[in-house]
Amino acid sequence: MAVTLADIKQAAERIAPYIHRTPVFTNENLNRRVGSQVFLKCENLQKVGAFKFRGACNAVYSLSAEEAPNGVCTHSSGNHAQALALAARMRGIPAYIVMPNNAPQVKKNAVAGYGGVITFCEPTLEARESTLAKVVAETGANIIHPYNDERVIAGQGTATLELLDSVPDLDVIITPVGGGGLLSGTSIAAKGFRAGIRIIAGEPEMADDAHRSMNEGRIVPSVNPNTIADGLLTSLGTLTFPIIRQNVEQIVTVSEQGIIDAMKFIWERAKIIIEPSAAVAVGVLWEKKIDLRGLKVGVILSGGNVDLAKLPWQ
Amino acid sequence: MAVTLADIKQAAERIAPYIHRTPVFTNENLNRRVGSQVFLKCENLQKVGAFKFRGACNAVYSLSAEEAPNGVCTHSSGNHAQALALAARMRGIPAYIVMPNNAPQVKKNAVAGYGGVITFCEPTLEARESTLAKVVAETGANIIHPYNDERVIAGQGTATLELLDSVPDLDVIITPVGGGGLLSGTSIAAKGFRAGIRIIAGEPEMADDAHRSMNEGRIVPSVNPNTIADGLLTSLGTLTFPIIRQNVEQIVTVSEQGIIDAMKFIWERAKIIIEPSAAVAVGVLWEKKIDLRGLKVGVILSGGNVDLAKLPWQ
Repeated sequence: MAVTLADIKQAAERIAPYIHRTPVFTNENLNRRVGSQVFLKCENLQKVGAFKFRGACNAVYSLSAEEAPNGVCTHSSGNHAQALALAARMRGIPAYIVMPNNAPQVKKNAVAGYGGVITFCEPTLEARESTLAKVVAETGANIIHPYNDERVIAGQGTATLELLDSVPDLDVIITPVGGGGLLSGTSIAAKGFRAGIRIIAGEPEMADDAHRSMNEGRIVPSVNPNTIADGLLTSLGTLTFPIIRQNVEQIVTVSEQGIIDAMKFIWERAKIIIEPSAAVAVGVLWEKKIDLRGLKVGVILSGGNVDLAKLPWQ
Repeated sequence: MAVTLADIKQAAERIAPYIHRTPVFTNENLNRRVGSQVFLKCENLQKVGAFKFRGACNAVYSLSAEEAPNGVCTHSSGNHAQALALAARMRGIPAYIVMPNNAPQVKKNAVAGYGGVITFCEPTLEARESTLAKVVAETGANIIHPYNDERVIAGQGTATLELLDSVPDLDVIITPVGGGGLLSGTSIAAKGFRAGIRIIAGEPEMADDAHRSMNEGRIVPSVNPNTIADGLLTSLGTLTFPIIRQNVEQIVTVSEQGIIDAMKFIWERAKIIIEPSAAVAVGVLWEKKIDLRGLKVGVILSGGNVDLAKLPWQ
């Protein structure tokens, strides 16, 4: 069962009462700097500060009346954990979050603040998975994977429905790519809307596993990635990779300096806070490795969760 | 000739093609923290990053065909200088800006970037005024005062027309107060819309001249103010003081820590960049010196121009 435009439209209806319809901003300075007409879809202004709330919300509200009472669970130290905790609280069910014990304090606080029940584990994938299995065995909670889940992919695609509703004649849409949930959902929504829309992803040079996966035709795992874009450390999933292979024109890598420069420019000129992972999508335009001049380009600003005490330009 | 609601409506029409209609944001976390229903009018997302563009734009486009070619001038090191430079460039006339030679480099660059012709002077009021007089003598440019000018006051009031168009049933509107242009325009627009709307201003404790002016019934000059809210250092003007005396219920002082805390909260939770002067208005709610619980409160976020290399919480 593949995710379709119809699934995304259904997700949009399902989550409409709970999410923000985020604004689309334009910025003259950015347009001049990059040479395109850029439309910024501000998912940094989404609840919990990231598009992740869309997918989590769709997954939580897709649970049947029988499934729901056991709650949901996941292992994540990032925005998905916060998103799942808030969506679960809205539905009135528990969210069990497995987090590595070295996760930043702000992230622990945020998940706890949304009512998530945290179980800490060693910071290895093995520990995360075995701890999660234990939580499931104890609680019967429904696992909601951060991206390799059709309900989540459909939810992430809803941002693009809104974007195209506001700006129907986009030539290109750019998203960042980590595990590929946002990119997959975006591509299905956009290609379903108009097959000619080009889908391009930005990925950190220092975590270029998706770029290499596309070249090699198989999922290349992300091994010890070292980038400031801490939302893009994961590998593609078995559900997201085939979608991306089919729909995505190109994955463009962005340097660390390009990420930082694009991020700072958006803060200074657009006056909105975006996290490094969101800046990666802007970085595709910023570094001009591909020619998008004169085109109408939608950019999904994926999130705005940043530790204000540690900014990359300081 | 006093500024009226009709003047503000006329200004709104005049500047509509040039300004952004800025969004109004709500934030659940903020509402919970302060106990009111808060509507943030995002003038930080206005062109040049501040409401000042409204007043400058109205003044520039109010000039007759005879007056306009000589251009405009002002002495300012802040947002008004940038705003005037951009408005003048839009109309295709020169803007002469007198700036103290110790103004931060970013501000010099910004004014120059908008095509302003800068004349530097010593950082004293006397030097600013005598240099401005010299510029006027040489160029015949029209002086546009940052706040003590009816065209400017009317322009600043247009933000409130938009805010009340979006949220007509506000109980209270809060703005920061420096020279009083924004506060005056806001109060005329709001009281004209519905006489019962309460107008409250926030002012830094460390620059409380407007608060004292209200108490003493005369313009108390601002002497060596020392606050992080660098947009609020000026004294009230002869035009703004009588308007404020008539329309404004209370000027609430906000501590430096309150300004910083409110600013950081907005950055972290609302994901938008506001400058300390804008945070002063939020600070009125934050510090809860007056009871606004349960009310619908509009807050004008006056601007978002911040030096990202020098943040107050670091």
